[in-house]
Amino acid sequence: MADEKLKQILELIRLGQLSVSDGLQQISTAPVGQPVYANLDLDRARRCGFPEVILAEGKTIDWLEGVVARLLEASQDCFATRLNIEQSKRLRSLYPNAQIDDIARTFLLRTNPNATLPTKGIVTILTAGTGDIPVAREAMNTANALGAFTRFIPDVGVAGLHRLLDNRKSFQDADAIVVVAGMDGALPSVVGGLVDCPVIAVPTSIGYGTCFGGLSALLTMLNACSANVTTVNIDAGFKAGYVAALIARKAHKV
Amino acid sequence: MADEKLKQILELIRLGQLSVSDGLQQISTAPVGQPVYANLDLDRARRCGFPEVILAEGKTIDWLEGVVARLLEASQDCFATRLNIEQSKRLRSLYPNAQIDDIARTFLLRTNPNATLPTKGIVTILTAGTGDIPVAREAMNTANALGAFTRFIPDVGVAGLHRLLDNRKSFQDADAIVVVAGMDGALPSVVGGLVDCPVIAVPTSIGYGTCFGGLSALLTMLNACSANVTTVNIDAGFKAGYVAALIARKAHKV
Amino acid sequence: MADEKLKQILELIRLGQLSVSDGLQQISTAPVGQPVYANLDLDRARRCGFPEVILAEGKTIDWLEGVVARLLEASQDCFATRLNIEQSKRLRSLYPNAQIDDIARTFLLRTNPNATLPTKGIVTILTAGTGDIPVAREAMNTANALGAFTRFIPDVGVAGLHRLLDNRKSFQDADAIVVVAGMDGALPSVVGGLVDCPVIAVPTSIGYGTCFGGLSALLTMLNACSANVTTVNIDAGFKAGYVAALIARKAHKV
Amino acid sequence: MADEKLKQILELIRLGQLSVSDGLQQISTAPVGQPVYANLDLDRARRCGFPEVILAEGKTIDWLEGVVARLLEASQDCFATRLNIEQSKRLRSLYPNAQIDDIARTFLLRTNPNATLPTKGIVTILTAGTGDIPVAREAMNTANALGAFTRFIPDVGVAGLHRLLDNRKSFQDADAIVVVAGMDGALPSVVGGLVDCPVIAVPTSIGYGTCFGGLSALLTMLNACSANVTTVNIDAGFKAGYVAALIARKAHKV
Amino acid sequence: MADEKLKQILELIRLGQLSVSDGLQQISTAPVGQPVYANLDLDRARRCGFPEVILAEGKTIDWLEGVVARLLEASQDCFATRLNIEQSKRLRSLYPNAQIDDIARTFLLRTNPNATLPTKGIVTILTAGTGDIPVAREAMNTANALGAFTRFIPDVGVAGLHRLLDNRKSFQDADAIVVVAGMDGALPSVVGGLVDCPVIAVPTSIGYGTCFGGLSALLTMLNACSANVTTVNIDAGFKAGYVAALIARKAHKV
Amino acid sequence: MADEKLKQILELIRLGQLSVSDGLQQISTAPVGQPVYANLDLDRARRCGFPEVILAEGKTIDWLEGVVARLLEASQDCFATRLNIEQSKRLRSLYPNAQIDDIARTFLLRTNPNATLPTKGIVTILTAGTGDIPVAREAMNTANALGAFTRFIPDVGVAGLHRLLDNRKSFQDADAIVVVAGMDGALPSVVGGLVDCPVIAVPTSIGYGTCFGGLSALLTMLNACSANVTTVNIDAGFKAGYVAALIARKAHKV
Amino acid sequence: MADEKLKQILELIRLGQLSVSDGLQQISTAPVGQPVYANLDLDRARRCGFPEVILAEGKTIDWLEGVVARLLEASQDCFATRLNIEQSKRLRSLYPNAQIDDIARTFLLRTNPNATLPTKGIVTILTAGTGDIPVAREAMNTANALGAFTRFIPDVGVAGLHRLLDNRKSFQDADAIVVVAGMDGALPSVVGGLVDCPVIAVPTSIGYGTCFGGLSALLTMLNACSANVTTVNIDAGFKAGYVAALIARKAHKV
Amino acid sequence: MADEKLKQILELIRLGQLSVSDGLQQISTAPVGQPVYANLDLDRARRCGFPEVILAEGKTIDWLEGVVARLLEASQDCFATRLNIEQSKRLRSLYPNAQIDDIARTFLLRTNPNATLPTKGIVTILTAGTGDIPVAREAMNTANALGAFTRFIPDVGVAGLHRLLDNRKSFQDADAIVVVAGMDGALPSVVGGLVDCPVIAVPTSIGYGTCFGGLSALLTMLNACSANVTTVNIDAGFKAGYVAALIARKAHKV
Repeated sequence: MADEKLKQILELIRLGQLSVSDGLQQISTAPVGQPVYANLDLDRARRCGFPEVILAEGKTIDWLEGVVARLLEASQDCFATRLNIEQSKRLRSLYPNAQIDDIARTFLLRTNPNATLPTKGIVTILTAGTGDIPVAREAMNTANALGAFTRFIPDVGVAGLHRLLDNRKSFQDADAIVVVAGMDGALPSVVGGLVDCPVIAVPTSIGYGTCFGGLSALLTMLNACSANVTTVNIDAGFKAGYVAALIARKAHKV
Repeated sequence: MADEKLKQILELIRLGQLSVSDGLQQISTAPVGQPVYANLDLDRARRCGFPEVILAEGKTIDWLEGVVARLLEASQDCFATRLNIEQSKRLRSLYPNAQIDDIARTFLLRTNPNATLPTKGIVTILTAGTGDIPVAREAMNTANALGAFTRFIPDVGVAGLHRLLDNRKSFQDADAIVVVAGMDGALPSVVGGLVDCPVIAVPTSIGYGTCFGGLSALLTMLNACSANVTTVNIDAGFKAGYVAALIARKAHKV
Repeated sequence: MADEKLKQILELIRLGQLSVSDGLQQISTAPVGQPVYANLDLDRARRCGFPEVILAEGKTIDWLEGVVARLLEASQDCFATRLNIEQSKRLRSLYPNAQIDDIARTFLLRTNPNATLPTKGIVTILTAGTGDIPVAREAMNTANALGAFTRFIPDVGVAGLHRLLDNRKSFQDADAIVVVAGMDGALPSVVGGLVDCPVIAVPTSIGYGTCFGGLSALLTMLNACSANVTTVNIDAGFKAGYVAALIARKAHKV
Repeated sequence: MADEKLKQILELIRLGQLSVSDGLQQISTAPVGQPVYANLDLDRARRCGFPEVILAEGKTIDWLEGVVARLLEASQDCFATRLNIEQSKRLRSLYPNAQIDDIARTFLLRTNPNATLPTKGIVTILTAGTGDIPVAREAMNTANALGAFTRFIPDVGVAGLHRLLDNRKSFQDADAIVVVAGMDGALPSVVGGLVDCPVIAVPTSIGYGTCFGGLSALLTMLNACSANVTTVNIDAGFKAGYVAALIARKAHKV
Repeated sequence: MADEKLKQILELIRLGQLSVSDGLQQISTAPVGQPVYANLDLDRARRCGFPEVILAEGKTIDWLEGVVARLLEASQDCFATRLNIEQSKRLRSLYPNAQIDDIARTFLLRTNPNATLPTKGIVTILTAGTGDIPVAREAMNTANALGAFTRFIPDVGVAGLHRLLDNRKSFQDADAIVVVAGMDGALPSVVGGLVDCPVIAVPTSIGYGTCFGGLSALLTMLNACSANVTTVNIDAGFKAGYVAALIARKAHKV
Repeated sequence: MADEKLKQILELIRLGQLSVSDGLQQISTAPVGQPVYANLDLDRARRCGFPEVILAEGKTIDWLEGVVARLLEASQDCFATRLNIEQSKRLRSLYPNAQIDDIARTFLLRTNPNATLPTKGIVTILTAGTGDIPVAREAMNTANALGAFTRFIPDVGVAGLHRLLDNRKSFQDADAIVVVAGMDGALPSVVGGLVDCPVIAVPTSIGYGTCFGGLSALLTMLNACSANVTTVNIDAGFKAGYVAALIARKAHKV
Repeated sequence: MADEKLKQILELIRLGQLSVSDGLQQISTAPVGQPVYANLDLDRARRCGFPEVILAEGKTIDWLEGVVARLLEASQDCFATRLNIEQSKRLRSLYPNAQIDDIARTFLLRTNPNATLPTKGIVTILTAGTGDIPVAREAMNTANALGAFTRFIPDVGVAGLHRLLDNRKSFQDADAIVVVAGMDGALPSVVGGLVDCPVIAVPTSIGYGTCFGGLSALLTMLNACSANVTTVNIDAGFKAGYVAALIARKAHKV
Repeated sequence: MADEKLKQILELIRLGQLSVSDGLQQISTAPVGQPVYANLDLDRARRCGFPEVILAEGKTIDWLEGVVARLLEASQDCFATRLNIEQSKRLRSLYPNAQIDDIARTFLLRTNPNATLPTKGIVTILTAGTGDIPVAREAMNTANALGAFTRFIPDVGVAGLHRLLDNRKSFQDADAIVVVAGMDGALPSVVGGLVDCPVIAVPTSIGYGTCFGGLSALLTMLNACSANVTTVNIDAGFKAGYVAALIARKAHKV
């Protein structure tokens, strides 16, 4: 029913020229009969350079399946993050060719997987510890999905500084660096002081007690004494990989 | 036992004119023998315009069942929110005609479901994302229960602004707007600047990391730069729908 | 300089067809020469029903003076809140006819102060204590500015319940009620249970220790057990008065 | 091994007069061989008027069983709180005569259950809602264990004020009042203004969103505008009942 | 203007039978002309046993002066807390016979200062450090105002335990104990384990860094391992003294 | 005194071969005689592309003066942030040619101010309100110091969306965008959805009540629903301008 | 592929001398083919006196197994903390000779378990309650692993002070004391005032409500009024035991 | 008046054998006549190895003067911290020979300043930045007061790692290291990984925005990934210096 018509009916009711019961008969009674659960932004790729990415968390399996189908229908690359085990299982059975990473909890399906990707720019991903790896792989997969080369250097936390310094060559020439760390979150400050590119810091919820689910690492990173450090949400490997890839692509645009 | 009598007994004990053991025999020893668990406010509809609404959360199934029965006994409409699966199952088997929405977790049983409702006023409900839908439907069902028309427009978050602007006509003539959003909670600020009616903002616990269970979205909404925005508790679709319906009804009173 | 031209210059520099020093000569070197400090939303009255309201806090006296002048130039009513003493003094000397309330810290200048205002609807403002009065008067002045009648009932906190109950008649017929309270913030819950109109709760920073600058009262209000209570920012009398007036006007529109 | 001897051995090692390996042979190698897990304060009843009360939470079933046995061995009344289901089952099978309340999660075993208790003083327990009942019953059982009479008035929250006012007689003559409330925690402020005895406020974790596990109710109570309100930990029915009973007993001492 | 009349006028306006401009002429335009700033609860003494106590903080000097005058006019004892220097000076000049304590920031004026007070019960006040003394004196003066005997034992913090144990005799026979402590707030836990009366713990804002304005001491006290400890707001010596006096009076009622 | 020598002396003392008093005579007694207060990182420009930037806050005027002198001595550009009025006055008198911005509180002194700067890349700075301008200018000045072109677009908050959309052309071709916002902090989410470059969000402490000194805006930004948003510390215009300039320079490197 | 070669390829691509598709063929496409998950610091023992300790939490069972194997391969003592049940089961089956403590959740495997350990120094561990024992045993096992003697004195909380004072002899001669406490966290303050050695305070997450997962106890300890108290993370028995052992060893070095 | 006598009087009053007015005459009416404000722990040196240290903050000048006099009277070394300017001026005029450090805000007066101090052990103090120096000097002066040698190495934060590594020799042989850092608080983690002695981390309130008065640095330090780091209160240089000196002394005891 058009809004104009609904408005007229209500006006008539308000003016007393139509009884409520008669009005009711003229109005569709099922606003949620076919609940719309998503309103995909199919224009995103044009505006922002990459299609809308799906946050699987908080969606029922059916909703997720529907959204994925809709994106593919529109011939857009489909990238989803934070899948739980059930969601992962369903998508794997529907799309056996998709790249599903169960540690990173990501899903990637190219609309034309054989096409040559215009890969460019280098994003290096460092982690402070082993427990930070799942978030770091979410960052890596995201950067790859956006078309950047990635290097992955885990477990180089500051308690054993030589591990980081020994890898200095492997990250100093990057276009952007993602540093993933939980607990004290000190690694980005140190890395930032060794390079001249932006460092995207990702706090993780790794740790216990006063780690407060990643809050401590987040605060450390926001207060980083190195000027080239910016920060994203706790465990938001996706966002860090996304921004790092944007920077890397920009640095290599023709 | 009447309070006066209990008092007399205690006074006698205090004055030494009655032994404690004798006193004990005269006093009912089972203050919790038949535990009273509820004290329904059956006068609520008269004072506030709608009967007491039941918060199912935190009640045992038996307590919930008892409270529902008591309301119906008093011939009052019975609306309950935040049912868990067990509670939902029990009520569904007891009241097959009730409207139970498993996504919204609400229960509605009219005392006379065939009566024509004096429906009036329009409440529009917007959500920023798909994950906000359960809370938004709680708001919608509540507004419907109070007798308002509702429109439902999900997934129009600010990252794809055109989705919101394209729907402008569908919400600008509302009497009150409910905006449901998690994560950054930015949608109410934007909507507020486009309309001249009150906007009730509902933060949801959707998101992760620094969403802090909805706290971030709540703070955003409390600080909304649009003057017509007020806020309710995190995930409190019920309260938003309730107030929006009050406003809408008031705007169409004869 | 037009954006297009700047872009061309930069492109030429990037392509090596223009030296940086030559480019610099062609570009305006003073992006902050005449700092723009405001971008008034003169369309606000059309969209939202009332012109942009000025938050004086955080503006230099000169900026504030400039913004006020700009609004009046556009023949719009000018309402400002949270003036400090210096700002108040300056505006008073410039606009002797303005209504300046030093307790509420508000400023109001009608473009045509003699015109009859289409006043309609009743907003009642209650406060829990004496210390809440400045915020409550900000709410009252705002509601008046938007064209609502107001009633003001201070110091009826719940520790002396009879004071509230004795005033019941004075607020039960309001179109919207603003309840201003600091410390325990309990008053809105009680008022909400006595009326059938929306209650806008305003927490204040009155109190000490665990009042935490109004946070405690805010949380109380967000958790109010009465369903018709919504909440605004701490000390935000302005927002509460604004929304209450919107509701009251809507309830009396022809 | 006596401390003195251990000290001598270490001194000899430090002075080089005994090799570490020889020292090791002389020292007991099993400091945790028979882990001591408790050190009951059997003198508590003498000092504080009631034996040590056991917090079951955080103890293994075996530890709990051991502690209970030790108290009974010492012929002291045994009262335990916050039992989980497994602990409750074990104690019930061991002590079929004990008073176990599965809603309140308490356990009480008198050393001589037939003895006449010197019961004295009245403690009234009020709750704001139905969900607060488990905590309120913990308070009631504790006050009973300490020898006070108790009255129990549930579900008299401030959203329906008449429910409270109708019960005024039943709590105004109490020696101490325990008020249990979650969500907005507003009830103690109101009750405090109606009586001349101490009010012990117990915040509960009932609610959702900004209830923050009871923090909101706690803050409300700490900021209560009535002067006779003191507060205990969230969900600490035990502590409230304990203090209320102390006050009531003191008011009726011979 | 009576509410009824105002209502009639508005009704006429709404029905279109009276023009807004005509209505305006009939309505008093000065709702804040003579701002009411207080609504004293003169019935408090009857209900709660002591007249309303004035919180000076947040009141202008004129408002404070007005409230004091009103209480004395009603022949009630006047007790005020948290006076600043200006307020103190004004009241001292107006009421030279009042008891003003500049460290505790309290004001007391008996309506008939020569009358014999029915003093009864003993309240002992302990402080952990020297910096806690102002709050402790507020507690002492309050308890005295309510008619209790008081003992004052400062600077017996737990870092030098013998200082507390040496004073054991001076507090073990109290009817109620107020313990005032900042920093670690550990003193109430220790005192609570040594006595059989209620302990009212008052956290102070003394300390720095993680004392967080008294929050740390507050949390310590809420988690006190002794069962007889209840807590009041940070720096709320007034409330602690008030409740302690209620308990002490009750323990000595005839 | 060399560390080696000090160590030898201590060893001799420990071994008993030198008396403590003799040792003391051999050791310099004035470790803080000439307090070293800074240890400038003169290698920073080589590693990170720009010399160490001075945080004036927390330094005495003498310390600040000393550090500036040391940097200039080393022929490095000197950029300082967060100067207070006294510091600003001192540096202005010492270095009349420096660029001091009293609104942004920044100081810039090029070692060779007449040299042609290799300026490249465009950084656009947006602010939500007028009060955010000081922080935004710190960002602008920083980006300029690092050699980027800047555009400045203030007061385009989301409550009047057209202001932002009208400026779309002026920011869509930027290499990096800095968005400065207080209160609800919603602007970066909206801007992020309109562009394909990184957005650096800067929360400001502008606002009151629940703005909590910028915490609310910070949380909004960390939870931004647009994937290209990263965040820096509250009021950290410096850091945002720094990173934005790095990105812009990288995008235009030859 | 060596970094240098990758760099050359990327340079060629950037310069347009190599097509992206050709470049891709030359680059290894599997940066995560054999995911590296750990980068053990095998030099730790030399620098810090003890090999890297493994935090089992947050590691998959396979990762943990791999890390343990790598340490043993390098002939280093292997100590791991915070094992969950599955991890514990796997390690027990692989290394039947290891010392696994299921209450403390620790694992210790000496490379040469028969060697005489150079045990020295005494660390005493105190707990406030029974629930603190698991954390205290983690501390004890850690101190033992580092080669200190340990004494274990549980359940001597301050509510029954005599329990602590009776044990005074057993802790006054320690080289370092670890005090483990949840709830009010008051024990370290009291212990600190009785001894002349460092006290390492460990807050535990024992308690409920305002214990806030150990935050309250942590704050108490950070504010301890005794000067010799330092604090570690919540539940960090490991860290406390580690530092205490360092102190004890240092006190007995030859 | 002796407690016993007071008790007898009260008992007589309670029993009705003495009128309240008569009782009043027998009781000292001036419990605060000569307010006791301190209760010095003159036994502290014996128990803990150093006399009670005075926290000047929160004491009036008179109270401070009195406490200092009392300590000297008892022939004990007098060390005070956190003096404000007025306190400093008064003490300087009274004790011209005292060592007053206006940056560290400390006061030291030896009872016999010419005596040879049994100085032993080395404490090294590092700071991350220049702004941390006042706190670091408080630590240094405290360690000196307790008889340790100190080395002072300021401004070696992790953004310029070489500054720290270049000083490695100067801190690796220390008996205990104090690391003072604000902002990100990352320095202790890095230092901890380079040495085998305990590291005492001191968070400072240096920084802005999310530094939250030192909370961020504190959390970083509590979560330090190096096992040998313990933490003290924000800005608590005193405590860190105290504990470090205890460790250093113990390491060099004969």
